[in-house]
Amino acid sequence: MATLDQASYEQLQQQEAQLSQKFQQLQQQQLDLDLTRGKPSAAQLDLSKELDGILNGDYRDSGGADLRNYGGLDGIAEAKQLFSTLAGVKNTEILIGGNSSLTLMYFCAQIALERGLTTDRTPWRQDQRAVKFLAPVPGYDRHFSLCQHLGIELIPVAMNDAGPDMEQVESLLHADPDIKGIWCVPRFSNPSGIVYCDDVVQRIAKLSKIAGPNFLVFWDNAYAVHSLEEGAPPLANIMDYCRNEGTEDSVLIFGSTSKITLAGAGVAYVAGSPGNLEELKKHLGFMSIGPDKMNQLRHVRFLRDAGTIAAHMQKHAAIMKPRFDAVLQALQSSLGNLGLGEWTEPRGGYFISFDSRPGLAREIVSLAAQLGVKLTPAGATFPGGNDPRDCNIRLAPTYPSVEDINKAMEVFVTCVKLASVRQQLNTPTN
Amino acid sequence: MATLDQASYEQLQQQEAQLSQKFQQLQQQQLDLDLTRGKPSAAQLDLSKELDGILNGDYRDSGGADLRNYGGLDGIAEAKQLFSTLAGVKNTEILIGGNSSLTLMYFCAQIALERGLTTDRTPWRQDQRAVKFLAPVPGYDRHFSLCQHLGIELIPVAMNDAGPDMEQVESLLHADPDIKGIWCVPRFSNPSGIVYCDDVVQRIAKLSKIAGPNFLVFWDNAYAVHSLEEGAPPLANIMDYCRNEGTEDSVLIFGSTSKITLAGAGVAYVAGSPGNLEELKKHLGFMSIGPDKMNQLRHVRFLRDAGTIAAHMQKHAAIMKPRFDAVLQALQSSLGNLGLGEWTEPRGGYFISFDSRPGLAREIVSLAAQLGVKLTPAGATFPGGNDPRDCNIRLAPTYPSVEDINKAMEVFVTCVKLASVRQQLNTPTN
Repeated sequence: MATLDQASYEQLQQQEAQLSQKFQQLQQQQLDLDLTRGKPSAAQLDLSKELDGILNGDYRDSGGADLRNYGGLDGIAEAKQLFSTLAGVKNTEILIGGNSSLTLMYFCAQIALERGLTTDRTPWRQDQRAVKFLAPVPGYDRHFSLCQHLGIELIPVAMNDAGPDMEQVESLLHADPDIKGIWCVPRFSNPSGIVYCDDVVQRIAKLSKIAGPNFLVFWDNAYAVHSLEEGAPPLANIMDYCRNEGTEDSVLIFGSTSKITLAGAGVAYVAGSPGNLEELKKHLGFMSIGPDKMNQLRHVRFLRDAGTIAAHMQKHAAIMKPRFDAVLQALQSSLGNLGLGEWTEPRGGYFISFDSRPGLAREIVSLAAQLGVKLTPAGATFPGGNDPRDCNIRLAPTYPSVEDINKAMEVFVTCVKLASVRQQLNTPTN
Repeated sequence: MATLDQASYEQLQQQEAQLSQKFQQLQQQQLDLDLTRGKPSAAQLDLSKELDGILNGDYRDSGGADLRNYGGLDGIAEAKQLFSTLAGVKNTEILIGGNSSLTLMYFCAQIALERGLTTDRTPWRQDQRAVKFLAPVPGYDRHFSLCQHLGIELIPVAMNDAGPDMEQVESLLHADPDIKGIWCVPRFSNPSGIVYCDDVVQRIAKLSKIAGPNFLVFWDNAYAVHSLEEGAPPLANIMDYCRNEGTEDSVLIFGSTSKITLAGAGVAYVAGSPGNLEELKKHLGFMSIGPDKMNQLRHVRFLRDAGTIAAHMQKHAAIMKPRFDAVLQALQSSLGNLGLGEWTEPRGGYFISFDSRPGLAREIVSLAAQLGVKLTPAGATFPGGNDPRDCNIRLAPTYPSVEDINKAMEVFVTCVKLASVRQQLNTPTN
């Protein structure tokens, strides 16, 4: 296939006919495949089968407390110890919650919005003024919908290979005092898979100096240990930078074991300054009797320490890497050098981000659906589902088998080509 | 000890001296005992040791879905089936949550307050008007503090042996349209242990006809199956009465297994009309990735059906009954017929409610603390910690051993007597 821009109208018509025929052949296969969500595969879940039964009649923490009973709002000491290492904070700077980091994010945003969470304590919502968050795009739809549910406006910010465009971030903050936070997935970002570079992390640690003392960075480090290969880029420790700047109150670090152990049955945490956590606990005490300490104990017994976690994550990578490779090989062999799209080659995380030619993402997703391949809805990676260039498609290759991925990718590249050729045929120059 | 009203000033002085001496003797024992909170004992927790390891490599629900992965916001089908039986509703009328029913109550109250939850959808908070709840007293301090955190005013309502004083409830609702809900612990009420009679349940099912379509009964049936003995009074099914009245939207039924299996590591639920649950789910979807389905599956495998639960609860009762008996025997043998207090004799639940002579509860709790016996703070069973008669003390006998309860009760009755005699000595008639 020649590049579209060089093809004549007749060549394009010929290509369209061939691709349409291919499309019809694929349609007859009546596929039912799903590349939509970042779900671990069954083989990955099997890696944590020791969790069930690991307590073995011993329910006490190192202090001798019986963890089967009531008590404790911020998690068991052993879990604080383990996950503070993962979060890169002191064990006095973490709260271990239930199974959902999204719930912790929601609580924190809601408290900051309505009651004031940072040491500053000024609620974001005051005097009927708008409250806004920066949303690096493409990003994670659940972050965006959380804000929308709370009535927080989202302002898209461009992402590049090193993280959010910090020039843009800083100038937006200078211009608009209603911006109270920013969403970050700093390592293996969802969906692009990039890792924030040190300079970006350092600049993010200084943002409250522009934005004011109740500004909060929502640092969702969901893929902190989720490398696909050795040598994947590390992430700078934001809390260390904050300590240097005296801005510890400006960042909340979130994480969970949903993609380390079991999806939806793991342990979530939020790390932050002791002052912020104290304020958070004051409110959580009215909402909850405290987290499930048994599940925390299970996780501590199973994951033990940073070394054990790293070894465990290598087993995940061994299962996931061939799936990512299958996607990338299909993209490269079928679309490479054709100018029909660009994609990331992540070294960790759960997603590959694909950008079609502008104006085609919805069409590609729709064509794939007609062939029985579900893709994340076009636009989902943008606030309000609105991708202004209509080009970003998030591919999630972890759940299906390599065989299914190969089938799904054959569909995908066919749809990309077909949509691109049809677009080219309909452009005025032809 | 003669009754105080008949005693002469000299007799009272003599009694005070004897009791003060007894107080000093007890002080030398340097006790450290705790009757404060409704915590199960270790022996009760041991009853659920099968939970850990019960999954045994089988993580699928009856439909074949792998419950270790993401998916599902309202709980697994098997848990809905099991707990809907307990709640007395259809399996389409229940949502199974995480470990904390308090969290479900908080969410429901917050959504009803700010966004509207019943089919009517009118938020409670409108036009800056006050929002009020009826609080039958004595009651549960966590219910009261939840409302205070949300800015909901509490209006105390008297409790009698059959439930809240319904004459008072109904006339308050007629008089004040800002009253939007009522707290109920309908079986083995916290702390009095009484069970609402059928007539009260039926009248509660009709309250929204007085109070309007967004009124909600918060029916916290925390002790639904927690009888101490056979033949304990049953509770009428409020949803059945609601169906007769067409008021299914006016009640939310809460419960958890915290006092069936493990405290704080159980499974909580909320039952209500399909319309109310649909609305609740719409909001929960922004706050959570869904509940821990593994823990739900563990509970379903362990608790199985109503018969298995009943047999399990009999084992709890066998452990708890001697503790309740120890408290009641101490009260009867030391305070019976002396007119120094009144107490309930619950046939289930976790508490015994004691009423001293007016004006003495704080003093008794303070005296007991001096002897090393922690009691629930006086006033805790009233909104704002304010018991207007200063007489109610909640006794929680489940956690200590019978031997410790006997020691603690010797302290308690001594403090009741000492405080009562001193009060009588200081009354003007003497």
